[in-house]
Amino acid sequence: MKIAVINEISAADKNADILRALEGRGHEILNLGNTSGNDSPALLYTHTGLMSALLLHLHAVDFIVGGCGTGIGYLNSVMQYPGVFCGHLLNPLDAFLFARINTGNCVSLALNQGYGWAGDVNLRLIFDALFTPETGSGYPPHRAEPQRQGREMLAQISCATHRPMAEILLALPAEMTHTTLSYPRFRPVLEAATETASDPALSTAIKSVLKALP
Amino acid sequence: MKIAVINEISAADKNADILRALEGRGHEILNLGNTSGNDSPALLYTHTGLMSALLLHLHAVDFIVGGCGTGIGYLNSVMQYPGVFCGHLLNPLDAFLFARINTGNCVSLALNQGYGWAGDVNLRLIFDALFTPETGSGYPPHRAEPQRQGREMLAQISCATHRPMAEILLALPAEMTHTTLSYPRFRPVLEAATETASDPALSTAIKSVLKALP
Amino acid sequence: MKIAVINEISAADKNADILRALEGRGHEILNLGNTSGNDSPALLYTHTGLMSALLLHLHAVDFIVGGCGTGIGYLNSVMQYPGVFCGHLLNPLDAFLFARINTGNCVSLALNQGYGWAGDVNLRLIFDALFTPETGSGYPPHRAEPQRQGREMLAQISCATHRPMAEILLALPAEMTHTTLSYPRFRPVLEAATETASDPALSTAIKSVLKALP
Amino acid sequence: MKIAVINEISAADKNADILRALEGRGHEILNLGNTSGNDSPALLYTHTGLMSALLLHLHAVDFIVGGCGTGIGYLNSVMQYPGVFCGHLLNPLDAFLFARINTGNCVSLALNQGYGWAGDVNLRLIFDALFTPETGSGYPPHRAEPQRQGREMLAQISCATHRPMAEILLALPAEMTHTTLSYPRFRPVLEAATETASDPALSTAIKSVLKALP
Repeated sequence: MKIAVINEISAADKNADILRALEGRGHEILNLGNTSGNDSPALLYTHTGLMSALLLHLHAVDFIVGGCGTGIGYLNSVMQYPGVFCGHLLNPLDAFLFARINTGNCVSLALNQGYGWAGDVNLRLIFDALFTPETGSGYPPHRAEPQRQGREMLAQISCATHRPMAEILLALPAEMTHTTLSYPRFRPVLEAATETASDPALSTAIKSVLKALP
Repeated sequence: MKIAVINEISAADKNADILRALEGRGHEILNLGNTSGNDSPALLYTHTGLMSALLLHLHAVDFIVGGCGTGIGYLNSVMQYPGVFCGHLLNPLDAFLFARINTGNCVSLALNQGYGWAGDVNLRLIFDALFTPETGSGYPPHRAEPQRQGREMLAQISCATHRPMAEILLALPAEMTHTTLSYPRFRPVLEAATETASDPALSTAIKSVLKALP
Repeated sequence: MKIAVINEISAADKNADILRALEGRGHEILNLGNTSGNDSPALLYTHTGLMSALLLHLHAVDFIVGGCGTGIGYLNSVMQYPGVFCGHLLNPLDAFLFARINTGNCVSLALNQGYGWAGDVNLRLIFDALFTPETGSGYPPHRAEPQRQGREMLAQISCATHRPMAEILLALPAEMTHTTLSYPRFRPVLEAATETASDPALSTAIKSVLKALP
Repeated sequence: MKIAVINEISAADKNADILRALEGRGHEILNLGNTSGNDSPALLYTHTGLMSALLLHLHAVDFIVGGCGTGIGYLNSVMQYPGVFCGHLLNPLDAFLFARINTGNCVSLALNQGYGWAGDVNLRLIFDALFTPETGSGYPPHRAEPQRQGREMLAQISCATHRPMAEILLALPAEMTHTTLSYPRFRPVLEAATETASDPALSTAIKSVLKALP
């Protein structure tokens, strides 16, 4: 699986912990957000939420590992976009259930609140439970079918409630899209994905934003 | 404050706990979802999410207390709609921080996972921390202004990414809107709110859905 | 490893969950406490604490899995005895750290508080982290030696602060020792272990209590 | 109430958080352990456990707030002594239940594991729930009487299983008692309490250890 790790500035010092906890699982990891507390520009959850949504829509990655201090800011930001289904994972049981029941494409981690000593171990245990062949198998197992129907209905709702991603990108405040799309670790991945995107309107929108960058 | 409590069927047996935990705070409580495991029709998180969004858009309530088994299903459902900012509250510290930093209009409770003996007491302690005059004051306090700006930007993003609520209602799968709008505890509150709604397009959309009910 | 599972009455309905969560690990499991809420006599944490201490002193088992509603009652009870070192495990990280740092011979589980839906899965994840070849390896690894020294000092302290187990048994309130030693699931295991005990004073004390049983 | 705060070195940097969280409650606070990571000598949980037990036996304080990285080391250490009943408090609900059910004289806090941003707020919320006029009132209330009986039986057991405190002090490893009793913040409080102690054997034992200090 191709996984993007995207940290905002407030928890950028946990970025290395996340990367290490993802190691050795056979996934391709793209590290696209802030990687230290001194990074410039500093990304806010509004930026990391947009990055995440663009990557998912462009099929540039299969899964996003995001987060913020409490996990709630990033969660509320990334959930503004269509086609994003996000967990809030604090311990391995959360991950176990999210994989089976919600089977989303994004998780938000609490990287300051409750993140103390051995927080890195907790991340590893969370990922052990999250990345499982049992993804989508339902919990408890006999509820697999209604839970699958729930996810399908949620996907339909997400389509009905949101504008298309291309329209969204052009409607967002320019200051926010500029900081996001020009972020050095993110931009090349975005540009490459735009070349092969199956949504030509979104490609055009991204290119027009990139062209307008100062 | 006017607070709606909206339970789906999976955790309807916790509805009474929520009501008791909200007592004595001077809030007006509207109990609009399933109230016992035998309720019919059974509401799913897709229904309770739409109910929540409609009530907030009609200014019928100021705040929604929702949830599901883990809190993640309802959270992902209600977050599909514009203008909804939702916390995932498992303990009093979550509530303390959500009130000060995110200052949303909705919370999702985990009502089966981790909800054991004295879960009702935990709800009370959570609400003690959630309903505070310190709402929106920032945490830590010196971060109040950037956190306020973050909320404002998030509200703008929510506007940019979503269709208007009236369009949404008409675009949603009919089976889902029918079950939701015709739910006996919810319908009269919705109809009353529709009469005084400041969004005439939404009023019209609601009335057209209600008229089409079997 | 030989593991005793010992439940008091308040959480006896979780006994089956514990047994299932321990399955498939190659351990020999002795189920010696209450196994359902209707069991008679009802065991309290004072009884299960004494059972645990006797089994450990007789080397009848290597490890005890106990608990109560919150985990704190049993913990305070079993810790009254010499040579018992007990964790309070609520999630897998607790288990991971307890195995490496404290390396005790007993754990206390919270079996009502916070024990909701999927509590059985959480137990399984806890045991996955608890029963590890890394037991005693220290955390972080470079702290292995001082942590080992801490455990050794604690064992010396436990010796210095407690009476010998034989004296203890005879000094305890008779009503409590009677209920404990005569408990049907426990008594045969105790009697067998007494036959081969390396502490003759304790054997004698146990036999004298058993003889005095009504 | 007179409360001693006793930190070991591993979490001494949280000492100031604890003090602040205890402020404004009308309690007299004695801060007797390590107060910063640079303190010398460094106290281990074996030292802070003995300090706690001595203070409780001398009635020098009514309650001890201790802890360590996970809370489990200090808990196992302080529980080696007679007459100590200790909670492991991670969130306000733990404190609420401990006050009502276990009504002990000591708590152990997890001061590194899970102690992240806003950990100080969590301490405050924990103490809000812990120091309540409802102490010993039972939970749920109708279980007050059996829970009181359980505590009484536990106190009897503690008496039966432990040596008297004076004997214990003389039996403990000298290196451990020396470091503990000579600790600068602790020694004057101990000496003052020894003058007025109601247990003359303990007074004599303490004086003999103090006299033997290098």
